[in-house]
Amino acid sequence: MKSYAQPIKRLIAELAKLPGIGEKTAARLANYILRATTDDVEKLAESLVEVKRKIRLCRVCLNPSEEDICHICANPARDRQVICVVEEPDALAAIEESGVFAGTYHVLHGALAPLDGIGPENLRLGELQKRVEDGGVEELILATNPNVHGEATALLIMRMFKDRPLRITRIAMGVPMGGDLKYVDKMTISKSLEFRRGM
Amino acid sequence: MKSYAQPIKRLIAELAKLPGIGEKTAARLANYILRATTDDVEKLAESLVEVKRKIRLCRVCLNPSEEDICHICANPARDRQVICVVEEPDALAAIEESGVFAGTYHVLHGALAPLDGIGPENLRLGELQKRVEDGGVEELILATNPNVHGEATALLIMRMFKDRPLRITRIAMGVPMGGDLKYVDKMTISKSLEFRRGM
Repeated sequence: MKSYAQPIKRLIAELAKLPGIGEKTAARLANYILRATTDDVEKLAESLVEVKRKIRLCRVCLNPSEEDICHICANPARDRQVICVVEEPDALAAIEESGVFAGTYHVLHGALAPLDGIGPENLRLGELQKRVEDGGVEELILATNPNVHGEATALLIMRMFKDRPLRITRIAMGVPMGGDLKYVDKMTISKSLEFRRGM
Repeated sequence: MKSYAQPIKRLIAELAKLPGIGEKTAARLANYILRATTDDVEKLAESLVEVKRKIRLCRVCLNPSEEDICHICANPARDRQVICVVEEPDALAAIEESGVFAGTYHVLHGALAPLDGIGPENLRLGELQKRVEDGGVEELILATNPNVHGEATALLIMRMFKDRPLRITRIAMGVPMGGDLKYVDKMTISKSLEFRRGM
């Protein structure tokens, strides 16, 4: 770092704060920025600030949105009786990409991770509870991630609502499409057997 | 992408223009930006724009610098008789980190890559030629990358100056420190033999 000029050092330090960006990647990005046109860099800088200025969380599902209510919750064609619970907006985006889900969402903005100090109070569970209490919800699909944090979060939500007349389901875990069984880990194989269904 | 609000889509598109950042990584970074404090995001945006405003290329070695002449070229303790030629500023930074080089540098800002349309005219070779012609240079250390582009560039520079009373050297290629021979590729092994020296 010491050979870089001060503004470059500062940029590298700011970039290295981003998740998954180490100092080497930050230096590579900074070198790219140095070569990019001023116009391109200003566009990037503006889009960063604009996102913070224009985006809030949807009042219903907490998905980041330009509007008070996001385009999914505002869409009369979406089924409000089914709520798909996800950890983060990128999971919601992945499900939307698939094009197979016509219900609505709830974004928790995290998953249980006690060792990182993330407990139930850090997740947007109060809003979910309220949606269920307000009525009209028939199914919660727990689409938290298939890992220890996501599983614990799914279990927590299942317990929260277990006394309500509500169907609570978990997305299937199994071998990924296009994969080859010989490269699939044991945990996934065992899940694919556990989640098996009649043909 | 279609489930994201417009400003988020725009940010993802801008981030995905960065080298090595695909659409998935861009979406992950955008989600982080959404959660980061406005203050942090503004600092990042400012440091991007500041770099473009404040940084120019050193008049001597073409290393990005806040000054007309970079701190290395301006340092009277550095040996001007030895010029280490590198492709990019990050290679210069890596050599400086090692702390073993007391000479000066020349940054080519690229390497020969005919298939990508990068020929000798796209590299900062004219400036290097002028430095050599101005006299006082005794050695060029070719520290272009140990790959096909870097090798071709080193060869080109070697030919450019072959009729001058100038020592031209190439950094050694061989097995990396801390590595294990059984994991080293054949090309590297063969280079480590080619570059061997008496003990």
